[in-house]
Amino acid sequence: MKRRSGVTKPSGFLAGGLACGVKDGKIKDLALIVSDRPAKAWGVFTTNHVKGAPVIVSKDHMRHRFARGIVVNSGNANTANTLTKKAEEGAARMAKAVANNLDCPSRSIFVASTGAIGKPLPIAKIERGIAKLYREISVTGGGDAAEAIMTTDLVKKESHASFNVGKKKVTVGGCGKGSGMIHPNMATMLAFITTDAAVSRAVLKDIVKRASADSFNKITVDGDTSTSDMFIALANGASGATAINAPRGKGYAQLLDKVTGVCVDLAKKIVRDGEGATKFVTVNVTGARSEADARIIAKSIAVSNLVKTAMFGQDANWGRILCAAGYAGPLIDPYKVTVKISGATAYRRGKLVDGFEKRVKPKMMKKNITISLDLGAGKSASQVWTCDMSYDYIRINTDYTT
Amino acid sequence: MKRRSGVTKPSGFLAGGLACGVKDGKIKDLALIVSDRPAKAWGVFTTNHVKGAPVIVSKDHMRHRFARGIVVNSGNANTANTLTKKAEEGAARMAKAVANNLDCPSRSIFVASTGAIGKPLPIAKIERGIAKLYREISVTGGGDAAEAIMTTDLVKKESHASFNVGKKKVTVGGCGKGSGMIHPNMATMLAFITTDAAVSRAVLKDIVKRASADSFNKITVDGDTSTSDMFIALANGASGATAINAPRGKGYAQLLDKVTGVCVDLAKKIVRDGEGATKFVTVNVTGARSEADARIIAKSIAVSNLVKTAMFGQDANWGRILCAAGYAGPLIDPYKVTVKISGATAYRRGKLVDGFEKRVKPKMMKKNITISLDLGAGKSASQVWTCDMSYDYIRINTDYTT
Repeated sequence: MKRRSGVTKPSGFLAGGLACGVKDGKIKDLALIVSDRPAKAWGVFTTNHVKGAPVIVSKDHMRHRFARGIVVNSGNANTANTLTKKAEEGAARMAKAVANNLDCPSRSIFVASTGAIGKPLPIAKIERGIAKLYREISVTGGGDAAEAIMTTDLVKKESHASFNVGKKKVTVGGCGKGSGMIHPNMATMLAFITTDAAVSRAVLKDIVKRASADSFNKITVDGDTSTSDMFIALANGASGATAINAPRGKGYAQLLDKVTGVCVDLAKKIVRDGEGATKFVTVNVTGARSEADARIIAKSIAVSNLVKTAMFGQDANWGRILCAAGYAGPLIDPYKVTVKISGATAYRRGKLVDGFEKRVKPKMMKKNITISLDLGAGKSASQVWTCDMSYDYIRINTDYTT
Repeated sequence: MKRRSGVTKPSGFLAGGLACGVKDGKIKDLALIVSDRPAKAWGVFTTNHVKGAPVIVSKDHMRHRFARGIVVNSGNANTANTLTKKAEEGAARMAKAVANNLDCPSRSIFVASTGAIGKPLPIAKIERGIAKLYREISVTGGGDAAEAIMTTDLVKKESHASFNVGKKKVTVGGCGKGSGMIHPNMATMLAFITTDAAVSRAVLKDIVKRASADSFNKITVDGDTSTSDMFIALANGASGATAINAPRGKGYAQLLDKVTGVCVDLAKKIVRDGEGATKFVTVNVTGARSEADARIIAKSIAVSNLVKTAMFGQDANWGRILCAAGYAGPLIDPYKVTVKISGATAYRRGKLVDGFEKRVKPKMMKKNITISLDLGAGKSASQVWTCDMSYDYIRINTDYTT
C-alpha cells in the first residue's frame, strides 16, 4: 500500500506521476502537485541567461497572488527548441491544461521541465497525460511525482519534517531531482516544497531565499548551471495552525528551520546521486575575511576536476586542494593556511605535517570525506557539498541526447 | 644524429636534459637552457595566489637586467612543501648551481619546477644533476630539454620559425609542457622561447604579453590554474641582425608574428596532448559586444565538462553549448544566438535548423571539431582551444601523487 510521503506528507496536498510518452519505454515523465485550496507561493529560478520557457512562464505566474499547483515534465527541457513564443506557448498550455481541471486561472499553476535542451516539446502527449493524471492524483502520490521528475537520477528524492505551532502539527514535505548539470547559482535544480503552515507571502519569500542559500546553493556536481533550475514552495495553511505573518518569533524560526532541513536533505540526496558519484565530499572553509570569500574558495575546491578525480582515486592530494583555493580569486596567504582531510592535518601554516599520508589513508576509503581549509585570515566560514568524479561520469555524459 | 631543434634552433643557445633522480626510473627530470651571452628576458607567471617557490624566485630575478639561462626540474613543483624561505632557498640554490658554472650572478638564471605540489624537493640530487648537465649541454640539446620538462605529457613539444631582418636570418625557437592543470590566466604552463633577435627589454616585454594573450591564454584543458605556470622568452641578439628597439616597423611586426606563431604552435600541442584527449576543439565566439564578453563565453563553453564529455561521445549536443554560454556571465539573448558545430548550423536565432543531426554526424567523427557561436549582439570575437574529456582523463588523475 502506498503511504504519504514527500510533497503529499503535509495536509491538503495531492500529487501523482505517470508516463505520458515524452520519454521512451513507459518511464514516468509527468508529475502534478496540487493544493486542495489556494496556497501562498514563492520560487527561485536559474540565473542562466538562456532560460527554459517554463522558467519564463513560472516567473510570470509567481506574480499572481495564489498558487494551486505545479506541473512538471521530464525528458525534455522545453528550452531553446523553437521561437520564444512557441516554447512559452507550450509551457503555458501545460499550465492551462491543469487550470482547466482545477477551474482556476492558468496563473495559479507553475510549470517546470527538465531533460535535453533543444528538442521540440510533444505538447499534445503532455496535454493528454495531464487529463489522465488529474484523475489519479492522491494524498499518497508524492512518491510517484518524485519519480516522474527524474532524468539521470538513479534514486527518487523526498524528504519531510514536522513541528508544532501551539497544539497544531505543521508539516513540511518536498521532492527534488538532479544529478548532472548541477551548479546552482541563486536558484537550484528542480525542487518543490509543500507545507500546510499558514504563512504570509512575504515570510514565505524570506524563508525560500534563506533555505535555498543554505542548501541548494551549497552544492555542485559538475560546475554547469542549468537552464531549467527552479525551486518552488507552496504553503496552503491546511494545518489549521496560527498564521506566521512576520519573520520573527518561534513559529517563524521553526518553519525556517524545518524548510531548511528538508532542503538540505534533498540537496545532499542530489549530491549523493551525482552522476557517477562514489563519495560524498563536504568542503569546509574557515578563517576567511568574509563569508563571500569562504564560499568562493569552497566552491572552487568543490568544482575542481582534479580534486574530484583525486577523491575518486582515494588519493589525499591536498596540493590540488590548496591550488584550487589559490586560483579561486580572493587573496589568500598559503603560509597562513591549514589543510585537513577527514580530520588528518596535511599542511599547517606553510609546513608539511609528518605522518599525514599514513593517518589519512584509511579515511580515504570511506564514503564520506571532509576537506577542511582554514585560511587564518578572519572569522568567516562557508560549506559546500559535492561528489567525486568517476569513469561513470564520463559514461553517463558521452551520449545523452542521441 | 641529433639535430638543432626547439630552444636550440636560434644561434647562441645551448640546452640539455637528463635524469637526476627527482622522478623514479631514470626518466629525464632536469633541463637547462643557456644563452652563450647575456640575453634580454621577460616572463609572465601564474596568477594563482598559491605560487611555487620558483615563481617567486624567477619573478624576482626578472628585475635583473640580463639573463643567461633557465633551469627546470619536473617531478616536483617545489610548491607549498615547507616554510616560505626554505622552498625559496631550494629554488635559489638551483639558480646558484647554474650561475656558479656560468660565472654569472644567480639573478641571471630563471628557475621553474613542475610536478606534484607539497613534496619536499630533493635539492642535493638536483645540484649534482646540474653539475653533470652543465657539461652536457649543446646546440642540439633542445629536444632533451623539451623531454626533461614533461610530466603527464605524452609527447614533447617544440616549435620554431624564422624570418629575415635585412640579410640576417633571425630564428625563434621554443619548448613547452603541459597536459593537466591547464587553465592559464594571464600566464601559462611552462613554456620557454629563445630567439637570436636583438631586441630591447621593453619590446620583448610587449611581445611576450601580446604573444601569450594570443596563445597560452586561449587554451584550457581542465579549468585548474596551476601554481607553477611560467612563460619566459630569452633574446640574445646572436643573429647579428639590427636591433628592434621600438614596437613598430617591419622587424617588430615579424618578430611578434613569429614569436606568436611559435607560442600558438606550442599551445595547440599542449591541448592536443591534454590528459586523455581524443579531440581538438576550437571554440569561436563572434557577434559579441566586447572582446572580453566573447572570451568569457568561449572559455565557459571550452571548460564545461558536459560539453567536453559530449565531444568525446561524438554527440553534437549543442544545447549544452548554449547552456554554458548562458551561465558564463555576460548577458546574452538566446533568440539572437546562432550555434554551429563544424560548419553545420544547429540553431539560428531562436529556431532549430532541420537536418542538423544528419549533417553534423560525419563531422563529429573527425579529430578536429569547431564550435561556433554568434551572439548577434555586436562585432567582437574571441577564440579558445580545448580538448574533449574521456575515461583516460579520470584514469590519469585518480592516482597522481601516490
